[in-house]
Amino acid sequence: MTNPSLFFMPIIAGVIGLIIALFLYFRVKAQPAGNETMNRIATYIREGSMAFLVREYKVLAVYTVVVAVALFFAFGEQGLTAAFSFILGAFLSLLAGFFGMKAATFANVRTTQAAAEKSRAEALLIALDGGAVMGLCVAGLGLLGLGVLYCIFRESEAVGTVLHSFAVGASSIALFARIGGGIYTKAADVGADIAGKVIEGIPEDDPRNPGVIADNVGDNVGDVAGMGADIYESMVAAIVAAMAIAFTIPLQSLRNLIPYSDDLALRATAVALPLLLSTLGLVISIIVIFITRLLKNYSPAAVLRSALIIPPIILTLVCAVALPLVGISQGVTVALASGAIAGAFIGLITEYYTAWKPIRLVAEASLTGPATNVIRGLAIGMESVAIPTLIVVIAAYVADQALGLYGIALSAVGMLAGTAVVMTVDAYGPIADNAGGISEMSGLGKDVRAITDELDAVGNTTAAIGKGFAIGSAILTVVALFSAFNMEVNHVRELKGLEKMSLDLTSSGVLIGILIGAILPFLVGSTTMTAVGRAAGKIVDEIGRQFKEIPGLLQGKAEPEPARIVDIATRAALLEMILPGLIAVLSPILVGFILGPVALAGTLAGALAVGATMSLFMANAGGAWDNAKKFIEKGGLPGHPKGSDAHKAAVVGDTVGDPFKDTSGPGVSILIKVMSVVSLLIAPLVATL
Amino acid sequence: MTNPSLFFMPIIAGVIGLIIALFLYFRVKAQPAGNETMNRIATYIREGSMAFLVREYKVLAVYTVVVAVALFFAFGEQGLTAAFSFILGAFLSLLAGFFGMKAATFANVRTTQAAAEKSRAEALLIALDGGAVMGLCVAGLGLLGLGVLYCIFRESEAVGTVLHSFAVGASSIALFARIGGGIYTKAADVGADIAGKVIEGIPEDDPRNPGVIADNVGDNVGDVAGMGADIYESMVAAIVAAMAIAFTIPLQSLRNLIPYSDDLALRATAVALPLLLSTLGLVISIIVIFITRLLKNYSPAAVLRSALIIPPIILTLVCAVALPLVGISQGVTVALASGAIAGAFIGLITEYYTAWKPIRLVAEASLTGPATNVIRGLAIGMESVAIPTLIVVIAAYVADQALGLYGIALSAVGMLAGTAVVMTVDAYGPIADNAGGISEMSGLGKDVRAITDELDAVGNTTAAIGKGFAIGSAILTVVALFSAFNMEVNHVRELKGLEKMSLDLTSSGVLIGILIGAILPFLVGSTTMTAVGRAAGKIVDEIGRQFKEIPGLLQGKAEPEPARIVDIATRAALLEMILPGLIAVLSPILVGFILGPVALAGTLAGALAVGATMSLFMANAGGAWDNAKKFIEKGGLPGHPKGSDAHKAAVVGDTVGDPFKDTSGPGVSILIKVMSVVSLLIAPLVATL
Repeated sequence: MTNPSLFFMPIIAGVIGLIIALFLYFRVKAQPAGNETMNRIATYIREGSMAFLVREYKVLAVYTVVVAVALFFAFGEQGLTAAFSFILGAFLSLLAGFFGMKAATFANVRTTQAAAEKSRAEALLIALDGGAVMGLCVAGLGLLGLGVLYCIFRESEAVGTVLHSFAVGASSIALFARIGGGIYTKAADVGADIAGKVIEGIPEDDPRNPGVIADNVGDNVGDVAGMGADIYESMVAAIVAAMAIAFTIPLQSLRNLIPYSDDLALRATAVALPLLLSTLGLVISIIVIFITRLLKNYSPAAVLRSALIIPPIILTLVCAVALPLVGISQGVTVALASGAIAGAFIGLITEYYTAWKPIRLVAEASLTGPATNVIRGLAIGMESVAIPTLIVVIAAYVADQALGLYGIALSAVGMLAGTAVVMTVDAYGPIADNAGGISEMSGLGKDVRAITDELDAVGNTTAAIGKGFAIGSAILTVVALFSAFNMEVNHVRELKGLEKMSLDLTSSGVLIGILIGAILPFLVGSTTMTAVGRAAGKIVDEIGRQFKEIPGLLQGKAEPEPARIVDIATRAALLEMILPGLIAVLSPILVGFILGPVALAGTLAGALAVGATMSLFMANAGGAWDNAKKFIEKGGLPGHPKGSDAHKAAVVGDTVGDPFKDTSGPGVSILIKVMSVVSLLIAPLVATL
Repeated sequence: MTNPSLFFMPIIAGVIGLIIALFLYFRVKAQPAGNETMNRIATYIREGSMAFLVREYKVLAVYTVVVAVALFFAFGEQGLTAAFSFILGAFLSLLAGFFGMKAATFANVRTTQAAAEKSRAEALLIALDGGAVMGLCVAGLGLLGLGVLYCIFRESEAVGTVLHSFAVGASSIALFARIGGGIYTKAADVGADIAGKVIEGIPEDDPRNPGVIADNVGDNVGDVAGMGADIYESMVAAIVAAMAIAFTIPLQSLRNLIPYSDDLALRATAVALPLLLSTLGLVISIIVIFITRLLKNYSPAAVLRSALIIPPIILTLVCAVALPLVGISQGVTVALASGAIAGAFIGLITEYYTAWKPIRLVAEASLTGPATNVIRGLAIGMESVAIPTLIVVIAAYVADQALGLYGIALSAVGMLAGTAVVMTVDAYGPIADNAGGISEMSGLGKDVRAITDELDAVGNTTAAIGKGFAIGSAILTVVALFSAFNMEVNHVRELKGLEKMSLDLTSSGVLIGILIGAILPFLVGSTTMTAVGRAAGKIVDEIGRQFKEIPGLLQGKAEPEPARIVDIATRAALLEMILPGLIAVLSPILVGFILGPVALAGTLAGALAVGATMSLFMANAGGAWDNAKKFIEKGGLPGHPKGSDAHKAAVVGDTVGDPFKDTSGPGVSILIKVMSVVSLLIAPLVATL
């Protein structure tokens, strides 16, 4: 396992993934883009999306430079490498977001065109290819970055700091991209709905509404770029957590890994394994993406659902066969499988809560008005917390039995082994959604809309599954990062001749930390919810102004000015993401340096407990409201069609759920990841306080 | 401090408190009860309330017997005393609820009559006296029970089990009374509103609405009996936690308490102190209640607010002067003061979030519809979590610095020192609310309604303060109980020659426990929210039936049948309280016996982190929605009066907030107390698993 050629594997696999991404990117771009109207709308969306990304990246560049300078000074001799790795981690995330979104905004209109001129199968293929660019960029760049850093620094003392800094870079971008994108997408969605549907009474996606373009832009910046950065972060963090644990865990805890191995080889194997397993995961994912393309004529729902579930299963089987051949314990297979299977189950449970009986209950509660609809949605969201959390608990328990804390970290790696596929399917959703919007706005026929609607409906289900997956992997990753943080602190203390820190649950430091940590998800939830409301208000005002001041707009005789809405949404989102972002980044730093490592450990535990459950609550409540509304629109409540009081009540729940599921829920889930990664990085600095 | 006569003090103070309660009870009853209509309505309310209580008590009697039998068998030699103490703790809670509610349902109509025939001052006095019966019963019976048990068992080996069983008895009743009462009050409220205001368009408190009586009954069973059992539980649990810590804490941790004391006297003093300090608190509370009566001519708001804040301050001052005289460290004063001051600050912060700028923001958000109103209320509820939790953290930190974990327990005792006054003011609220409802239903003049409205408005503020107080004291009490649980487990392990349990935060047992604990508040939140919805649905159906089948009812020519609504609400509430109640009682037992004490400790910590923040979130969001609606009704949004779209949007938020603040929020807060008390009781049984 310590054969140097092995270390090039992640790099090679990453490069192959990127080459395939490039190939798919050009393939998508080469497809016909439809008539002039479609092209104009698609260009608006693409330009709006890219404009947001560019301006967001400028803000993030400032942030990145500031943090890089801080790292340079904070880490003494290792300062330069820390700053460099941090920048690399951030830059690769931005790069993945850039290419992925570019591909998605080419794919949307080409999917519409294929639905109009070719077939459902061709349309599905283009949407999938567009998503696969993002999926392969995310996984490929993550592996490439980690692989290169590990190759260079693996024998250096700085290797820990290097990897942690890389993860913090990835996390920081994920944090701001996710929160900024989440605010943008929901402010545009809510703002366009209120100004158009509620105030003026015109239909959704109506081309007269100046906010519709921004709404479609939002799908891209939130669900493609934001989600991509989030998943990239999860994958990187899971690998880094496992490697960090492998560096610092007492050797006797690793004895089960390779029987009869010598100490040096044992630790080297443990450190390299997460990277190699993820490499295997990428290879399997690439194969699955190609198999999925071959299945384009089958039902899209079946294709996508199996794409999510198959890669982890294959990975487990491959490991079960291959690991014994290289003398590695089947404990690794068990740990990987626990995460992989847990991920699939969480996805299915999430689908249940956002697609089956629960949404019927929410729809029926709409019969007695918006209040009962909201109450029922909240209750279902709360209920939905239990089983996914228990599944994670069981996965962690099984992995712990197999290989201890290292096993828990491998379990997270196993859950994220299919990252490229998960992200492909996730990015497919907004592409199909956009394709539907473009066909509506371009006035294409009913038949076209029927195809795009079918593709979009699948996107909703896969989005729900993907969200459950993202939160589940976040919880498991945070548990692993948390353990890595504590080991790192104790490792540093040991080196300085201090005794281990006492993390007794009853010590006042830990208890105080737990309560402080419990506050933070609520603060991020509150600031992001308020941000969406405030940003949506600005958009409502501007749309109202356009309706009033542009003569003939409401009569369909004049063009709206969508670029102004895009501009307002961009400014508002970039402004509003700062406060919740700073809460996430600064809280572990403040607690660590002021109250010390024990309180910081408590804070991470408190934030984990509240953050894991709150993000599941918010994501699933939002999903249930959304689909309950769609259920009524499809005639689920006979006698209460679209436009009835029950439907209006369901729209209220859906609107409440918008920031819940797409801004605050993901924001809270990424909060706990960022806090853990930052804590791991600063562990050596606060260890002796 | 070990002078035996001191042990009679709590008993004597308790008896004096009860005698005064009896005196006030007869004084209230002797007041004139107004005309026949008023009397008829008041009788309906009283009979409905007592009928609920009696049927609830029958259910609880079954529960009590089952648990008592279980305790008898589980605790071997100490089984009989455990069962007896458990029954006593439960019985005294029921007794306090019974007398308090009887007094409240006499006081409501007499307050109305005094407002009509005498003066505001007289009306205020009657409402206060009615509340004071509950306040003095709660504090008096609590002290009496603990005092008697401690006198009898203080030299017995069984003393720990006896006190813990008493606390579990108190907790169990509080749990079911709070959840059952909470479901009743909100199901009746929401049901009567939907059937009357929403479906038939008749005003609130309209005598034609058969659900109005049940709504008024709900105020009593939820906010008098339920709240009373809750506060009684908190006081008992805080005292028991401090005593339990004093029994098991290593002696060196108590050295600061009395310098130069011998070991035996030191521990005896530490054990007796919480009981004696609470006795002092009751004496001071009685004096403050009488001073408050003298101030009846001043503004009710100022009188009630100062009544809440003054007792803890006097207690602190008395201790600062008196403790040095008996050779006890000023650390005790610091610990008490930290809790007392924290309680006052939490009350004020709660008032801010439910009465000042935040409710204006919620009201303004109503201008763009119910969805933005709900979003803003949720955001404010989330934000409101931070400061109260930080205040508790600071109080715990200060108390810990002064006297360690024992100090944290004393801090909780200090916060609850004014229990009699807090409960008086809390019970005043629903009495004033009822008085207003009776004057409306009896068709008394505008002048009368003006007085009762003024009294009621104060009640809303004090209810908010009281709720913050209850949750704050719950958090602090749970921290103390949690420490007591861990000490008890280690004490038992030590006796059996086992080493202490390792509660390292990174151990998988603790982490798994934390995640399991994090689920439970969401489950209780979900089941109680759903319960309110289901029970309200049954009430809506029955009101609809009466409107349809009783000829002339809607025209005001026939009488409704309120007793049937009361019956349905009672049945539904008693049925629906079972599931959340069992979750609370059984979860620590299942975790403790299946996964062992380490996972149980983790579960308590996870439930604390989530439960503390969730209950603040729900209580304050609900309060903000409620008062935003009232703000609009009072003309806070010029151009948007009662009945406007903005007001209708605010009503949606208020309805969502009803179960949030009065059922689920309190349910979650009591969940974490019950779990901790039950864990403390079963600690010896699970310690060696």
